[in-house]
Amino acid sequence: MALHKLQVAVAGLGRMGARHALNFLNSVPRAELVAAFSPEPKELEWAKVHLEPFGVTLYSDYKKMLEHPGLEAVCIGTATSVHAEESIQAMDKNLHVLCEKPLSTTVKVCQDVVDHAAKKPHLKVMCGFSRRFDASYRDVAEKIEAGKIGRPTILRSQTCDKHDPSGTFTTRFFVAYAAWSGGVFVDMSVHDIDLTLWYFGSSVVPKSISAYGVVAVQPGLKKYNDYDNAVGIIEFWDGRIAHYYASRMMPHGQEDVTEIIGTKGKLTVNLNPQKNLVNYYHSGGVTREVPLDYWGRFEQGFVSEANEFTKACLDNTPVPLEFNNAVKAVQIGAWLQEALISGKQIKFDESGKRTEKSNL
Amino acid sequence: MALHKLQVAVAGLGRMGARHALNFLNSVPRAELVAAFSPEPKELEWAKVHLEPFGVTLYSDYKKMLEHPGLEAVCIGTATSVHAEESIQAMDKNLHVLCEKPLSTTVKVCQDVVDHAAKKPHLKVMCGFSRRFDASYRDVAEKIEAGKIGRPTILRSQTCDKHDPSGTFTTRFFVAYAAWSGGVFVDMSVHDIDLTLWYFGSSVVPKSISAYGVVAVQPGLKKYNDYDNAVGIIEFWDGRIAHYYASRMMPHGQEDVTEIIGTKGKLTVNLNPQKNLVNYYHSGGVTREVPLDYWGRFEQGFVSEANEFTKACLDNTPVPLEFNNAVKAVQIGAWLQEALISGKQIKFDESGKRTEKSNL
Amino acid sequence: MALHKLQVAVAGLGRMGARHALNFLNSVPRAELVAAFSPEPKELEWAKVHLEPFGVTLYSDYKKMLEHPGLEAVCIGTATSVHAEESIQAMDKNLHVLCEKPLSTTVKVCQDVVDHAAKKPHLKVMCGFSRRFDASYRDVAEKIEAGKIGRPTILRSQTCDKHDPSGTFTTRFFVAYAAWSGGVFVDMSVHDIDLTLWYFGSSVVPKSISAYGVVAVQPGLKKYNDYDNAVGIIEFWDGRIAHYYASRMMPHGQEDVTEIIGTKGKLTVNLNPQKNLVNYYHSGGVTREVPLDYWGRFEQGFVSEANEFTKACLDNTPVPLEFNNAVKAVQIGAWLQEALISGKQIKFDESGKRTEKSNL
Amino acid sequence: MALHKLQVAVAGLGRMGARHALNFLNSVPRAELVAAFSPEPKELEWAKVHLEPFGVTLYSDYKKMLEHPGLEAVCIGTATSVHAEESIQAMDKNLHVLCEKPLSTTVKVCQDVVDHAAKKPHLKVMCGFSRRFDASYRDVAEKIEAGKIGRPTILRSQTCDKHDPSGTFTTRFFVAYAAWSGGVFVDMSVHDIDLTLWYFGSSVVPKSISAYGVVAVQPGLKKYNDYDNAVGIIEFWDGRIAHYYASRMMPHGQEDVTEIIGTKGKLTVNLNPQKNLVNYYHSGGVTREVPLDYWGRFEQGFVSEANEFTKACLDNTPVPLEFNNAVKAVQIGAWLQEALISGKQIKFDESGKRTEKSNL
Repeated sequence: MALHKLQVAVAGLGRMGARHALNFLNSVPRAELVAAFSPEPKELEWAKVHLEPFGVTLYSDYKKMLEHPGLEAVCIGTATSVHAEESIQAMDKNLHVLCEKPLSTTVKVCQDVVDHAAKKPHLKVMCGFSRRFDASYRDVAEKIEAGKIGRPTILRSQTCDKHDPSGTFTTRFFVAYAAWSGGVFVDMSVHDIDLTLWYFGSSVVPKSISAYGVVAVQPGLKKYNDYDNAVGIIEFWDGRIAHYYASRMMPHGQEDVTEIIGTKGKLTVNLNPQKNLVNYYHSGGVTREVPLDYWGRFEQGFVSEANEFTKACLDNTPVPLEFNNAVKAVQIGAWLQEALISGKQIKFDESGKRTEKSNL
Repeated sequence: MALHKLQVAVAGLGRMGARHALNFLNSVPRAELVAAFSPEPKELEWAKVHLEPFGVTLYSDYKKMLEHPGLEAVCIGTATSVHAEESIQAMDKNLHVLCEKPLSTTVKVCQDVVDHAAKKPHLKVMCGFSRRFDASYRDVAEKIEAGKIGRPTILRSQTCDKHDPSGTFTTRFFVAYAAWSGGVFVDMSVHDIDLTLWYFGSSVVPKSISAYGVVAVQPGLKKYNDYDNAVGIIEFWDGRIAHYYASRMMPHGQEDVTEIIGTKGKLTVNLNPQKNLVNYYHSGGVTREVPLDYWGRFEQGFVSEANEFTKACLDNTPVPLEFNNAVKAVQIGAWLQEALISGKQIKFDESGKRTEKSNL
Repeated sequence: MALHKLQVAVAGLGRMGARHALNFLNSVPRAELVAAFSPEPKELEWAKVHLEPFGVTLYSDYKKMLEHPGLEAVCIGTATSVHAEESIQAMDKNLHVLCEKPLSTTVKVCQDVVDHAAKKPHLKVMCGFSRRFDASYRDVAEKIEAGKIGRPTILRSQTCDKHDPSGTFTTRFFVAYAAWSGGVFVDMSVHDIDLTLWYFGSSVVPKSISAYGVVAVQPGLKKYNDYDNAVGIIEFWDGRIAHYYASRMMPHGQEDVTEIIGTKGKLTVNLNPQKNLVNYYHSGGVTREVPLDYWGRFEQGFVSEANEFTKACLDNTPVPLEFNNAVKAVQIGAWLQEALISGKQIKFDESGKRTEKSNL
Repeated sequence: MALHKLQVAVAGLGRMGARHALNFLNSVPRAELVAAFSPEPKELEWAKVHLEPFGVTLYSDYKKMLEHPGLEAVCIGTATSVHAEESIQAMDKNLHVLCEKPLSTTVKVCQDVVDHAAKKPHLKVMCGFSRRFDASYRDVAEKIEAGKIGRPTILRSQTCDKHDPSGTFTTRFFVAYAAWSGGVFVDMSVHDIDLTLWYFGSSVVPKSISAYGVVAVQPGLKKYNDYDNAVGIIEFWDGRIAHYYASRMMPHGQEDVTEIIGTKGKLTVNLNPQKNLVNYYHSGGVTREVPLDYWGRFEQGFVSEANEFTKACLDNTPVPLEFNNAVKAVQIGAWLQEALISGKQIKFDESGKRTEKSNL
């Protein structure tokens, strides 16, 4: 008799949702993907080929999927705008929830979901920050914990996407996407902010936040008050600084780099991005290729995330990632975005309360 | 109704066998691990914890396992000495076979297995050379195919294991292992030889073979006519050279490097070995860690191997790796080992026939 | 008959002055070091051994040195506080001047020197920014010029010194030095600012300037309003951003890194600092060493600087570095330092005029 | 009164000679270049512009140059065929000698020069092996001396030149050059052999020597019994192995790599060749350029060589490089070349005496 496997459904079968579905189907031995939902006929067509034959029941109605017999957990990979609502609906059905980041682009809504989860302490609820499951970032956390760099003091982190200069789908997509993404700091730098909370501790209190941006290659972003290159700085009250760079203009591929400077040492992650272990020597020099997107960099992290979430559900152990951070990271991202748009510094007292009115 | 999954058994649950079993159990969505065999009580104890709960039937008798109802394929990860016999027995039961390398340390026995397989063309029979399934080596193959380096002319390849200077288990293991491993060129360099057959083409004909070795850190190897560091060169009749280095003395970890120099470009794989994407900056400089063993380097390759073998069985497509190469690689390894022990060059005519008597 | 060599004197024989003197003595074939000045007996002792035997006349009085028969040029490497005065005195004697950076820590004084030089157009007057003479930075300038990265848009540059955790000389030196160095942005980042003027063009107009710092390892800095780690951002009116990091806390050595991101490509300089071409493989991984100070990184740049200044004097060609930049770089450094100390953003209108009162 | 400077002449003003002349003229503060010789009118034309104006007397007759008043030392950079004769003539005039490698392509002639020098112990006589003066190779020597890698056991070293696929001057030059260069192992690998004598000790005794080559891109080499790619192995009696690769087919530039594997650690030099510290990120990945020739890699080494030779002459200290090695390195190179051409292994007894007749 086989051991019980977690009965999982995936909501949303777009870019991220489909990847989550395939991960739960193929790479999470302790889970069984039993159901999948999408409101998009096109996505359901894809699922008929790639999921249904493997015993996955397809739904075009999210609420109906939640009624799937024996369902225990839902992985939410739909559009950000419905993350919160779907998470709450799943919790109301007493289902564990793994929700793709961010819970919402609005801090208040994020907080609602976290508050809701607090009322259901028997449920495992997690917001997916894939870097938390990446072997290199974990190695850094262990080395910091072991005291190898003294006190982490300066954190520099960047999330940089490849630019598609042909002006085709991807570019248009990102411009349209800006309308509801929450902006470059909420959409992209939220990962760097989450790393900050990890390595500096989630109790850090901002003292001031500033941010600056330019629109260099995607003029369409302007009407959404967004930027294709942005730099932000956060001063914390305990004598630390984090600074971020987000860009959608990289020519060579995905380049997510993090550097943590301590009083006794320094650690870097992915300073020299690479697709694989090949170097090509030619008349122009020596060239290595770079992953084209975040999937090329973090695929294994997503697999670990799904496995660890499954383990927490089955074994009733804590999820590996404090749920409350999901609010804090979005809150900081939103402040950075506000500073970016207003061009004005935001200040906080030592309790974390803003000392000026919103600039917007 | 779920699609049919390949019913697989794994033979041998030692270091490699256990890894194969876990791969088929957890990382091969189209396969179902239904049975496992080991003659070792200790290995079966392990399997009771890690395999049996997931529906895997355990056997201490290989032949009985072959009778497991519905069994379709066997993955053989036992000691090299029984690879050939077990492969043949499985084929006689009309089971597909994925056999860990090498089929045998004896060329004749390898050839017997290949001949046997030739009589069962409906069966998928594959000898596992993990590097064939590694993303970087495959990228190299594609770039060569695309003409990026002109004609591949010089191949340098090394398989280098970490040395355990404490003289504990690993070291003693490798010394004892030398008694029946076939020697450093058959045991280690066989991977580099296989890469040569891949990148130069499997029809290359050796013109001469030379090899030299030293015993630098494991004096016990001498009584087995083996070495802990060895260099070998093969000249081919079509104007190409391959040279190999095998070592069990690396201080820092596993370091398997390959360099292919063509008339118009050069490609390297893993010239700068690395465990992950972290660099540590300290008062002594900048340090990166290195995988400690082949598993740290090739884990994903083994997963791909199992998946592709499964696909070939289920879809009745060719296995991705010509079975005959398994004989050829061992043959060349054995010649290198002979040259190493005798200290004499081995020569061949253009048809590949040796032009002198064996030196041993 | 040998060609005429430029008759050069060096003022100041401390850390930098001595290096300039040895460069002019040994590595500038078209110059002849004829005189050297220091107010410090200890430095003159050094000069008696290392300069005097090679025909260099020593002076303890700067003005007397300026009267040295046949003198044509002075290289000023004294303390920053006398750079301006000594430069003007030399110009008044119609001598060419190569002055170590900065001309002064005060913008007004810098401007005075530049204005003075403007009245003596027959003289070659140059402020030494060593990176302008470094082969890698020049390669970057050429690649930008050639259009390889499109429009340079984001510049990240850092000047990071090795920290001496023993609390001995170097540390105490830097703390005391902070009293008159102009602060971390004037002392260290002035190089990064100069690179910005080089790669973005010297006509860029700041829109806003912000900066933040921490005192992490040298508490003594606080009383001088200085910091051992500082981050600064400059927004420019033409849609570009430069951000800087300065640190005196590196554990591993000197690490001056520059990254220039354009609309079509990216260039980095010294992303992976290294002392030489050696890698050391040991049980902890693979380690490379890093230059311990700026001299280990830029020694060749200083040699080129001295040679090119000499050439400009002898051949009456323009100096390779616009003198006016020396004011502009210090001005921007001073603004960054003001923003750092005040914690307030500084803003400018499109003509470059400040739109608020000074925050200090 | 200035200190005495070594009065130096340079013989030969071709590719290497001209570089030596400019080094002594510009970068050796304790030497004065007083004379230069070339038999080639074209080279003398060059010298009239670049040397004569700086007080260098030009000669078209080598013997007359040796009579130059006050001459103390000669740097010989003429064609290899006259190295020996000119060295002996200079010694006969009691002049110190720095001779470009090799002394001769014939072992006997090399030995004659060394024997001749032995009769003039008051003279400083040195054969220039530039890598001995390179900072990275010296760092390796110090680390070995400090015991950082245990006993050096395996040495891999390669000298690889850029290939000029246009078939223009360089290529034709190298083909013609093969007629009198002594072959690829004497001409190129002699540097790698010298490194072996340095790191393993000059008393190592070969046990066997084998070598193999191909002609891949320069068919004209065949008639001179030479190869554009060659691999050689030397076994030493004390349980060490050196293996070499020489190539004139690199697409990307000069690539001289050395790897020394000891019983406790490993060191590499120039594993990742680079022209400078710039990386260029573009749509094809990340590219770094590579020095185009040995000068791009070893320029500073040649400057150090000239300075240290000068110091030894002036201060009457030992030259930094045992003269006898110059014979030993050529001898080993010649044996490798013999093994390459004959395709047969050469063997030696423990005293270093050959145990078979020459194969040629």
